[in-house]
Parts: sequence; C-alpha cells; structure tokens
Amino acid sequence: MYTAPVLIAGEWRQAAESGRFQPANPSTRDAIEQLYPVSNWLDCDAALDAAQQAAQVLKSLPAQSRARFLERFAELIEADAESICSQAHEETGLPVKPRLLEVELPRTTNQLRQAARAAAEGSWARATIDTATNIRSLHAPLGPVIIFGPNNFPLAFNGVAGGDFAAAIAAGNPVIAKAHSAHPGTCQLLAKLAVQALNETGLPLATVQMLYATSRADGLKMVSDPRTGAAAFTGSRAAGLALKQAADAVGTPIYLELSSINPVVFLAGALRERGDDLAQEFASSCLMGTGQFCTNPGLVILPSGNDAEQFVGRCVELFNSSPVGTLLSAGVETNLSRAVEELQSAGATLLTDNVTGDPTRVARPNTLLRVSGREFLQQPERCQTEAFGNTALVVVSDSTDETRQILGALEGNLTGCIYSAADDGDDSDYNQIEPVMRSKVGRLLNDKMPTGVAVSPAMNHGGPFPASGHPGFTAVGIPASLIRFSKLDCYDNVRAHRLPPSLQNDNPTGAWRLVDGEWTRAPL
Amino acid sequence: MYTAPVLIAGEWRQAAESGRFQPANPSTRDAIEQLYPVSNWLDCDAALDAAQQAAQVLKSLPAQSRARFLERFAELIEADAESICSQAHEETGLPVKPRLLEVELPRTTNQLRQAARAAAEGSWARATIDTATNIRSLHAPLGPVIIFGPNNFPLAFNGVAGGDFAAAIAAGNPVIAKAHSAHPGTCQLLAKLAVQALNETGLPLATVQMLYATSRADGLKMVSDPRTGAAAFTGSRAAGLALKQAADAVGTPIYLELSSINPVVFLAGALRERGDDLAQEFASSCLMGTGQFCTNPGLVILPSGNDAEQFVGRCVELFNSSPVGTLLSAGVETNLSRAVEELQSAGATLLTDNVTGDPTRVARPNTLLRVSGREFLQQPERCQTEAFGNTALVVVSDSTDETRQILGALEGNLTGCIYSAADDGDDSDYNQIEPVMRSKVGRLLNDKMPTGVAVSPAMNHGGPFPASGHPGFTAVGIPASLIRFSKLDCYDNVRAHRLPPSLQNDNPTGAWRLVDGEWTRAPL
Repeated sequence: MYTAPVLIAGEWRQAAESGRFQPANPSTRDAIEQLYPVSNWLDCDAALDAAQQAAQVLKSLPAQSRARFLERFAELIEADAESICSQAHEETGLPVKPRLLEVELPRTTNQLRQAARAAAEGSWARATIDTATNIRSLHAPLGPVIIFGPNNFPLAFNGVAGGDFAAAIAAGNPVIAKAHSAHPGTCQLLAKLAVQALNETGLPLATVQMLYATSRADGLKMVSDPRTGAAAFTGSRAAGLALKQAADAVGTPIYLELSSINPVVFLAGALRERGDDLAQEFASSCLMGTGQFCTNPGLVILPSGNDAEQFVGRCVELFNSSPVGTLLSAGVETNLSRAVEELQSAGATLLTDNVTGDPTRVARPNTLLRVSGREFLQQPERCQTEAFGNTALVVVSDSTDETRQILGALEGNLTGCIYSAADDGDDSDYNQIEPVMRSKVGRLLNDKMPTGVAVSPAMNHGGPFPASGHPGFTAVGIPASLIRFSKLDCYDNVRAHRLPPSLQNDNPTGAWRLVDGEWTRAPL
Repeated sequence: MYTAPVLIAGEWRQAAESGRFQPANPSTRDAIEQLYPVSNWLDCDAALDAAQQAAQVLKSLPAQSRARFLERFAELIEADAESICSQAHEETGLPVKPRLLEVELPRTTNQLRQAARAAAEGSWARATIDTATNIRSLHAPLGPVIIFGPNNFPLAFNGVAGGDFAAAIAAGNPVIAKAHSAHPGTCQLLAKLAVQALNETGLPLATVQMLYATSRADGLKMVSDPRTGAAAFTGSRAAGLALKQAADAVGTPIYLELSSINPVVFLAGALRERGDDLAQEFASSCLMGTGQFCTNPGLVILPSGNDAEQFVGRCVELFNSSPVGTLLSAGVETNLSRAVEELQSAGATLLTDNVTGDPTRVARPNTLLRVSGREFLQQPERCQTEAFGNTALVVVSDSTDETRQILGALEGNLTGCIYSAADDGDDSDYNQIEPVMRSKVGRLLNDKMPTGVAVSPAMNHGGPFPASGHPGFTAVGIPASLIRFSKLDCYDNVRAHRLPPSLQNDNPTGAWRLVDGEWTRAPL
C-alpha cells in the first residue's frame, strides 16, 4: 500500500520515508484507510531548497500576483467546499453544519481574501519616509516560512490554507506547511487546490509545499536551517517550546501560540444581577466545539457567596444536561483525562456527573471542577493545568484581594474577561483587578466570552508568554498578522529607480505611508 | 576605600558586593582612582522589586509625566555637559571636542527630547480601532526593562541615558541599567541627573536604577526573572547570545545589537570614475572614532583590475598617514589584535605598515588587510571575523558572480553599501548584487558610508541575525524604537470609561490611530 504523496517543488511525489502513520475517525474510532508518510531529511532538504528559490522569484514579482493567487485559492476552496468539509468531518469529528461548512470554511476564505487585499494594497508594510534625510524603510519578506498548524481548526488555521499561511504568503514568503497528523487528508485536499491556484496565477510552484510529518529531530533541524526565514507554530507547549529553542538558537523569528486557560472573572454585581444568564453564556462558550478552542474559558473566578453558589449550581445543571461533543482525537481525549486528574490531585472537586465516556467515539463527559481561592494559591501552577476540551475549573475567591492574588499567580494568557454590573457598581473591584488581569493577557474583554476571535485589524490573538512567544504580535487580524513574517528593510540614499514600488515617490498602490511623521496615501 | 554607591529604589546606597573593579584611562593606561562594586543578587533582587512597583505606578500616570521627565533630564545633561564629557573622555579616550561635547551629547539630548515628544503625543503606540466590532488595541508598557549599554557610546547609547533608555522610558517602562565597566563614572554622573529629574517631575524614583556590574550568572538570572519585562543589549556576541538564551527560555523579549562588519561594494564604474575620492571617503569613515562604531565599514569588496589596485594603494597611503586614535580600553585593543591575527591566519595579507602600538596609551596602528575573493570563499566564516576598531579587510573579487557568492556567504549585518557609477552604468551589476545584499542587511546604502546613524523615523539600526536578535525592529529612530518595549493590549467590548486615553473616542492627545483601516488624528 502506497503512502499519500508529499508536495515538493510543485510535484506530488512519493515521500522519502522514515515511517508511516494512519489517522482515525474520532466519531467511530475506526482507522481511516490511507497511509501517510513521515518524511525523512531528504524531503525537508528538497523543500527548503525549492522554497529558497521560490522566495527569490516571489520578491521580483509584483504584490498583485500574490493577491491573485490568494483570491483564486479562496474561490477554489469554495467550489470544493462540500468535499473538503466532508473530509475534515471524517478526520476531526467536527460537524459539517454549522461548524465546518458555515463557519470555518467561510472564515478561511475570508482570511485569504483579506490577505489578498492587504498584499495588493501594501499598507501592511508600514512604509516610512523621511524626506529631509532621504531615508526610507518598509517591512519586506524574509524568506521561507515553516508553518505547523494545530489540530482544532482543520481549515481556518491549517498550515496550508489558514491564518498563518495567508499572512506569510501575503507578506511575500513561500510556505512549507507541516500537515497536522490528525487531518492529513484535509490538508492534502487544500494543498491540491493551492497548486491549482499557483498554476493558474503564475506564481512559483514551490510557493506552497507540504509534508505530512517529520521526525522531531528533522522538525527542529528545519526551523533552524539557514534557508528558513521564520516559523509559526500553534499547538502543545512541549512541542512549541522545543521548536522555539531551536529557532532562537539561530536567531530565526518564530511565532508560537501555546497553551491558554483564559480566565473569566465574574464580579459580585454581575452575578447578583444576571447570574443565570451568565451561567448559560459561560456554559455555551465553554462547551462549544467540545471546548477545543485556544480561547476556551477554562478558569472561572467567582466571589464567594450565595450568588456564586447559585451560579455554580446552574452551571453544573447545564454541563450535565448539554450534549457531549466528540473530541478531535484519542490524543486529545487522553490529555484531557490526565489534566482532569491533575486538577483533582491538586485539590479540585469534581462537580459534574462522572459519567463514563462513550466507547463508540472519542469523547469525555462535560466536566466542571471547583477549588477555593486559598487552595488555588497553594498550588497555582498545578491548578493552571490546561484541560483542552469541554472542561473548566471554578475558583471561589474570598475577597477582591484574593482574586488579585489568583490573577497575579497566572501565567500569560490569550484572553481575560471581566463581567461586572451594568450600572458600573462593580467599578471599585474592577479597578483593583484590571491592572493585574491586563498584565497577564493579550485581549481583555468586558461582559463577553472569549471564544469567537474576530478577524479584525484591532484583534490581538496573542499574549504574554507562554500564551505566545512574543507579546507584541497577533496571529489573527489583517493586516497586523502579516508583520510577523517580515524584516525591516531600510534604504538610505538609494537612487529613486532602485527603490521598491511602495517607497517610490509616486506611491503606485496608494498604500498608507508615514511621511515625515504624517500618515498619508498621497504621492510625494 | 569605599566603592561607588549603586542606585536602587531612588537611593544611592553601598552595594551588596561580590567583588570590585577599577576602570582605566585609555589615554594614559593609568588606573582611575575610584573602585566600583560588582553587585550580588541582593542588589539585583532589590532593584527588580522596586522596578516592578514603579512599573505599576507609571502605568497609572499620564504619558505627559514621562515626557516631562525626559525633557528635564535632557536639560540637566546639557547644564552639566562639560563635566560629563570630561569624565567620559577620561574613561573612554574619546575626544571632548568635537566628538563628546559637540556630537554625542547633543545626540543624546536630542534622542531624549524626541522620545519625550513621542511619549506625550502617543502615535508610537499604533492605536487601532475597529468600530464595527468595538475592538480596540494599542501597544502598552510591558514592565521593567534591563539595559546593557555598549562601550563605544558612553552617552548616546548609555544604559542610563541613551537610545534604548529613552525608548524604554517613553514607552512607559522603568529601566534598570547596567553601567558599562569601562565608563562607570560617566554612568554615575548621568544617573545622578536622572534622579534629580525624577524628583523634579514626580515620577517614581525607581523608574531609573543602576548597577555597575554583576556576575555573569546574576546577569542571566535578571533577564530571565519573572519581574523583568524586556531586555536590551548592545555589545559582544558571546555576552549577548548568553543573555538571549536566558531570556528566550522564559519568553522575555530581548533586543540585541551584536557584531557587524558592514560590507561595502564598490562597482567598477564608481572606481573608474572617482576612485581616489572614494578611497578618501572610505578611509575617513573607517578610521573615524578609531573605527569603534557598530556600523564601521569593515569589509570592502572590489572588482579586480587596475582601478582596484589604485584604490587599494590610495587607501594604504591614507591608513598609514592618518593619525592613530586611542581605543576605548585594553580589552578592545586585545580583541582587535586577535582579530587581525585571525584574519591573517585565514589568508589575509597585511597592507599597512606594521608599526608597533603606542605604549603610552591604548592604541593599534591603522590596519588594512587584503584577501582574494577565492580565498575569502574558502574560509568565509574566519574572513568575517569582526575587527572592532581602526581596521578593515579588502576583498578583491574576480567577477560579479564571485561578489554575489561573497555576499551570499555573509552573516546578517546592520548595513551594506553599494557604490556605483553616477550615470547608472553599473546598474546591470547592481541588479545582480542587490538582492543578495538586501537579504543580508538592515540598511542598504547607495554611494554613502554607513557610519553616521541618523535618528530618523525611517532608520533601521538592526538587521538579520546576528547583527540583531530580530530583523523586524530598529534600535535607532523614534518612534519606531519604542515599540520594542511594548506588548499589544487589545480591548474587546470594554466599557468606554475603562479604556486607556489613546483608545477613547475623543483621542485626547491627537495621536495617529488606525480607525477602520484609515490612519487619522481625528476623534471618533
């Protein structure tokens, strides 16, 4: 039985294999009848060589050509939407409707189109001109980007079609994607459409390449290879930190999105005023997509008292009565079980029915745990164990000061939410809590759950370490996410005809430029 | 004999010592009659605690207060200009006039004032507002910044007064400066004025703290301490990489400026047209400040032929006949001697008179070496040994293709220059060389030497690793350099009265903001 071919230098070819793997259908636990290769270094090396050549060609092409590719790719994905979503459903257990077909696929094509517009228009590059000194600078591509996509968004964060991909290509870089081993068939379908779009729009074929898997050692070797310009990783902390260490050692930018438990604080006035509604809002957010979102609210902090008890009771009812979703893979199921055990051994009490999992599919019961603020503060690290899935920990705090301490003991997170009374009656507590929360998260929300990450220019999908690798960048939001995959290129006294288009006096694409301290779209 | 006091939490106090050191006057080789302490961890810990508290207070103060401090500090430096420059001259050997008093000190106060204006005005923070989703974001302070200044700019890059200092403070962060051990007295004078300015403008006194030295282990511990927000280092590669590894391991942003040899390519037409002038221009740039600039032109690439021989001959005359400057310290002298030996052992020929150094002061003869392109390509790493000081290596290349290969073998550099014929007759060669040069440097120059780094918003004083630690940031240029010391803070659905001023509808400081994709200073 042959393994699926890898995509190197525009060709679908048999991999240089060091092993094989077979994905499974989480809805049935059955193996899927397709073997995929683990590539050895020969494949990695060939992809890096081809990517390096493509990077040179891409730099010489107008940005409009990248835009056309991204737009065409989006069209092709839409045309094949049903088969892509069907394949993704088989591999991930995520429902075709509404999730894959009506939410995630439109988000994916929307991102590709936003990235296309950003590439063509050019404002993302933050061109800056100082006319007095004739010094000009802009952000420019930095070379092949290696993208490791996560398990939980088979389309919108796929290494070969998702947010990092769109940003890296729009910024002018070729991409080498590592398919996720839980949904390699979905990756293959998307990569085929990418190749078609490359062919139709005349970009170098090695602009998009894909391997299914490599050894850990080869993955580290790839990100630290001198041909690599940057890397992006979304996934587990252990794997991400190993890649970070390899990239950091050679000064290659790497952007990570690692674990996050996304604290939510309900202040007293909010609980008193609308506790039942908030319980519903929290349970919906926490159980949506079987809780498998980066911004899933995994830690809830409540001020002790009757309102908190009523809120918790309502949450337990909702967790026990809500349908139990399917998890992405047996690995997710195992890790979730371990995390719940770890939280329990750190002192947390299980509140929900400890019903046995469903043996016919990959799943675990909706799970709510509880710990006191005092107990949390005794073992803050263990109580922050990420339980990726349909699980959350409630912390009941005895005072605003204790809540401050709990937040102060947190690692960096992507998001933090504070719910407060509609009449601002909680403002005194809010003002004590906010500075600590603000320092720990990338996105601070009021009266709103963190799931649902808008593709907005003002979004920050990032946060202090270890939520991400650098607190100054966002993985979601166009054009801001493009800047990650660039270097700052300065031109000092360079003759006019040798400047890149966005730095020429006539500003051919009408991009926003910072000219002598003023942002303008006008020519010089 | 007591050691000089360290500055912790607004007090000049005796250090908790683990050792002592004594600087020397490079113009006489005499020891300077003052002992300075090597602080142990107690001092580091106390400074970190105080800085963390100051960071909280700073966040609650209006940006205008930082601006007033920076402006007042600049005034105080100007008022004490003569004594500061006299002290700096004693410790560094750099001439008081014109260098210290007329160039570097005005640059220092100019940077402080530009940073003050940037802080007060607020555009640096790149506020972004998406009105449709009510998501708003901006760059905000990230906590105490530890700054390790270099030996070669005792004022303009001093950890307690220079470019990184101004940027970190303007962005809203307290600074812990490590004084440079070659000019601790200058650092002390500047720090005293900083304290006076803090007192006069009401900022937390721990906004500026200073230690003279720590053990290597404590330095690493400081940058990886959880209280540290970011670090900045300018200096030797070995020390910088050790700090980088420590910071990277805990995900703390660190900005490095390490070695750079700043390649200069003279194309055939330029040499033919104005070779003698270019020899003069190169020799002046290379020997200015005894060659001790980050952007010193240390590698010259010439197309072989009569024009190249004439150029080299003229350079040798100039190097032999120009006055020999004083080096910053005995350490610089030793490293320079070793670098020249390394280049010679890699095959380079010494072109200049091998005159013995001056035993009465720290100095080495102006030195020019030569190697063929072929020899360079046989040992490209050794031929890139940085010779920090009044020394350069000339590479004579046999073809444009060989020049491309030489550039392709270079590590990342801060700058790269290409000189070409005035009539654009070298454009064919330029176009072959430029893409390789462009990928290796942060700042590309035409017909201009790299020394003289304008404090321009369009400047990039940075470059691909190992010139700096991340190719997307600049250490010089305001407001761009501020962004290094920030995290991206997103506000999602946050109530209007809880937003930071720069995100409020009325835009109180009139900062540039990206509102629904358009840059504007207008209120919403």
